[in-house]
Amino acid sequence: MNYSHKEIEQFVEKLFTAMGCSKSDASSVAEVLIAAELRGIPSHGLLRVKDYYAMVKAQRINTTPEVRILHQTPSTATVDGGNALGPVAAKKSMQIAIEKAKTAGTGWVATNNTNHFGIAGFYSLMALEHNMIGIALTNANPLVAPTYSADRLLGTNPIAVAIPTQNQPPFVADFATTPVARGKLAIKSKLGQEIPVGLVQDKDGNPTTHPGAIEQGGAILTLGGNGVALGGHKGFCITALVDIFSSVLSGANFGPFVPPQVAYLPVLQQTVGKGLGHFFGAMRIDAFRSAEEFKLSMDDWIATFRNAKAAQNQAGVVIPGDPERESEAIKLKQGISIIPAILNDLNAIASELKVRPL
Amino acid sequence: MNYSHKEIEQFVEKLFTAMGCSKSDASSVAEVLIAAELRGIPSHGLLRVKDYYAMVKAQRINTTPEVRILHQTPSTATVDGGNALGPVAAKKSMQIAIEKAKTAGTGWVATNNTNHFGIAGFYSLMALEHNMIGIALTNANPLVAPTYSADRLLGTNPIAVAIPTQNQPPFVADFATTPVARGKLAIKSKLGQEIPVGLVQDKDGNPTTHPGAIEQGGAILTLGGNGVALGGHKGFCITALVDIFSSVLSGANFGPFVPPQVAYLPVLQQTVGKGLGHFFGAMRIDAFRSAEEFKLSMDDWIATFRNAKAAQNQAGVVIPGDPERESEAIKLKQGISIIPAILNDLNAIASELKVRPL
Repeated sequence: MNYSHKEIEQFVEKLFTAMGCSKSDASSVAEVLIAAELRGIPSHGLLRVKDYYAMVKAQRINTTPEVRILHQTPSTATVDGGNALGPVAAKKSMQIAIEKAKTAGTGWVATNNTNHFGIAGFYSLMALEHNMIGIALTNANPLVAPTYSADRLLGTNPIAVAIPTQNQPPFVADFATTPVARGKLAIKSKLGQEIPVGLVQDKDGNPTTHPGAIEQGGAILTLGGNGVALGGHKGFCITALVDIFSSVLSGANFGPFVPPQVAYLPVLQQTVGKGLGHFFGAMRIDAFRSAEEFKLSMDDWIATFRNAKAAQNQAGVVIPGDPERESEAIKLKQGISIIPAILNDLNAIASELKVRPL
Repeated sequence: MNYSHKEIEQFVEKLFTAMGCSKSDASSVAEVLIAAELRGIPSHGLLRVKDYYAMVKAQRINTTPEVRILHQTPSTATVDGGNALGPVAAKKSMQIAIEKAKTAGTGWVATNNTNHFGIAGFYSLMALEHNMIGIALTNANPLVAPTYSADRLLGTNPIAVAIPTQNQPPFVADFATTPVARGKLAIKSKLGQEIPVGLVQDKDGNPTTHPGAIEQGGAILTLGGNGVALGGHKGFCITALVDIFSSVLSGANFGPFVPPQVAYLPVLQQTVGKGLGHFFGAMRIDAFRSAEEFKLSMDDWIATFRNAKAAQNQAGVVIPGDPERESEAIKLKQGISIIPAILNDLNAIASELKVRPL
């Protein structure tokens, strides 16, 4: 059975209102989680309600936060997220970046004292209606080893960039900077399947084809895999930059000190900043050239890549953003299916919070 | 025999003055090329003098360019590089970004109508003395296939980011976004050596271990290699973003339309913009938090990674910028060695230009 996205969104909004959020904040959280479902990224959708709720119940997240600007210049701001649910702090931060860009040409916001924010793409997409390029980065719990190390010091730190177009659909890149997500490894591990070399290392930092290594002190590798032969050190630079922009600029915790975003892991004893960190950018395209010229040129760029010769036995270039938009179009019409285990979790939470179940 | 960097720099400056550059422009070119030699990146050093000279002789590069701002806002500018030698347009553009950042907090410059600019790292490093983060991107001649395509549509498009520190040496990431550079493939090919799968594909887009495939219609792969199994599509996003920021924002040629940067390849018939494109950023760290706090936190970040447990049989994490700085320290003392073939080329050019040989 499928549920309409509106129906689910209202239900989720009620859950977060019942957890103590203002209607507006609950609406932000619901909007971001349902956007993930619509865009075909359920790992960042309804699945997270249970984690967010457990963090709220454990008083590790504040449902009545004060999100405020700590410091600013014409094109920048540093925001204290008030230990809010990530989507609440993140949406407000991106709005500030957009406002800055209106007058300064670009706006850049580093946010500390925040939490897991769902899909990075959501915030980058907010820029498009303003004829701006939108950028969103965040750090995340450490599961990733830098090149040549056996320690887990970085998250799967995503990058999202949305770029306006005229007639083509927008270019929307939204990707974890590691070659694989933790969820996919967990599924492979449960199925007893092997994975190719280049995704995971064991606890000593050696290549392995066992996805379960990650649960035994191993680590996810950076893009480019083990060592430098296929560019793993470049992947390390990219994941590291996302961490530094999200945390060192904002004053949040970096790398291994990012606070766990699930309540079943204990609070870390050592901190080097406040909470988890995000970084946002908004760039007015007409701060560089006429918006129309830019968008037509972007159309050309996309058409050039879309029409490129396909590799043998392949369908050709996938333009970033196409698969998510296609998923969204289908799910807006046909509704969203929820797997029974998640539906049960949601309704158990609803029961606890005295919200009418889905 | 080694030459002191000053001696070579003065020689190279004289060559470019003799080609018609102003003393200041010739000095910029020499400074950037010698910085590459010092930092252990000779592929972007003296080797390029011959290519630059051939482009000047063919009147495909202008040695008396007008580099000018076309459009600006408080935090942005679009620069017409006047078809200058890349280092001339790039250094002026980065200076504009730094000036913008002084008042607006950040400065962002997109430059069109420019050429090969040497090492991206040079421009990012310019920001450090201003307590700013420096960013430099450029597009480059198409040798790289997007995921699932057999066409060469992208360059090895580098990213450089330099980040200030207090007591640690600065963090300086400077890397082509592809897993391997063309020069390394050419050497392997000449030695008849095979390369691992994940660096190159053949003309039909199939994986290959033959480095020579690149000379037979093959392509360099994006970071993450063939297909999506190891994240090649994420590497495509990264290399594509560098192209779009460098070209679509600035009004330069994108992807397959980037003008050849060597005179032995013909001028392209079709253009979609002006010349090659760069993108620069300068971010005042005190636009986000106190500069001292930022730099001490960055020291902590670096120390954490430097002290991480090494993987088995490895020496541990390499902090971005360390190898280049170590090379520079040695070469500043011991001088720079020039391989005979390059020395001969340089002296042949000197002879043509009536400059005293090295």
